[in-house]
Amino acid sequence: MLEPLDNLIHALSRLPGFGRRSAERAALALVRRPETLLDTLVQALQEAREGVCLCSKCGAFTTHEADPCPLCTRADRDDGLLCVVEDPADIHAIEAAGAFRGRYHALMGKLSPGRQTGVGELRIAALAQRVKAEPIREVLLALSTDLEGDATAGYIAERLRPTGVRLTRLAFGLPCGSGVGYADPLTLRRAVQGRQSFEDAPPDA
Amino acid sequence: MLEPLDNLIHALSRLPGFGRRSAERAALALVRRPETLLDTLVQALQEAREGVCLCSKCGAFTTHEADPCPLCTRADRDDGLLCVVEDPADIHAIEAAGAFRGRYHALMGKLSPGRQTGVGELRIAALAQRVKAEPIREVLLALSTDLEGDATAGYIAERLRPTGVRLTRLAFGLPCGSGVGYADPLTLRRAVQGRQSFEDAPPDA
Repeated sequence: MLEPLDNLIHALSRLPGFGRRSAERAALALVRRPETLLDTLVQALQEAREGVCLCSKCGAFTTHEADPCPLCTRADRDDGLLCVVEDPADIHAIEAAGAFRGRYHALMGKLSPGRQTGVGELRIAALAQRVKAEPIREVLLALSTDLEGDATAGYIAERLRPTGVRLTRLAFGLPCGSGVGYADPLTLRRAVQGRQSFEDAPPDA
Repeated sequence: MLEPLDNLIHALSRLPGFGRRSAERAALALVRRPETLLDTLVQALQEAREGVCLCSKCGAFTTHEADPCPLCTRADRDDGLLCVVEDPADIHAIEAAGAFRGRYHALMGKLSPGRQTGVGELRIAALAQRVKAEPIREVLLALSTDLEGDATAGYIAERLRPTGVRLTRLAFGLPCGSGVGYADPLTLRRAVQGRQSFEDAPPDA
């Protein structure tokens, strides 16, 4: 295989949902139709690169002109309710489910010894700061239901407990070993509605 | 959703194997990690755009420096055997199967009234020219086993019959309604080994 094609296949296969075989098919289709497929994709990537950034407050996707983002500034949302997620994409997924009317805070990952993600890599200090400075009465931990997500939730609960804020997590409507980004809107809506006190839930339910 | 993100999702969802949902996940991952994922992909796309072209003789992917491509010029391949495919990617698939040692000719599509692809859009005249000018004794029609592929094979057979060249097609090891690019190497190898005379095969076997 030609080296530029190999590199393109490799770059595509790093995207979520792409295996080697599908990356190969996509790469060949792109090179086969440069004017329509490839140029359009390059332009869309460059415009997204320049036009989209992360909200400095909650971490959601936004534009440089709207930072903090509308989710942080809109008056019709509940300032007392803060939803903590791993990734900006999770905010989009919960918004699409339409079941949450508070504010958001993206950690930018979860505690993961394997991937060298410790407390310092995550936006946990910024979260503690927000809980202290804002009129937040409840923190909803909308994290993955795998081991690393549970460990992250446990660490945050420990750290926020002295503030007296109410800690909840998404109902166990989520399938175990999965993440927020994979759930369908109905499952997400039910999980938000049935959210549980972090203290009451059995440790390995 | 932000407009640049929407455009990126749309551009990704046009790639083969990508649905709306997987394009969304890939777009968010790209924007989330611009330095590692997005910039690498843009660079790989641009290098493939500049570095890869189609061989002027057979239509396979090659570089501007190697045109005609190695498949056309290498001395260890059989000049008397010509494999006709729809798409450059099909050449790659057959090469990966390792069962064919002749030359190639990509038509750049198949006859398709629905997609406005007629005889003039395909490299059929160039094929007839090659059969006349080169010492070709057998043309292997390695086209899709759907209606349009069959129609294309029928048209080419009709057109090449006066030259007296032997016409074969891939054995019906391919699943019906499918294309060369989808087959696994073993199926492809068996289909090349069991290739049949175009005249002998029952019309709707």
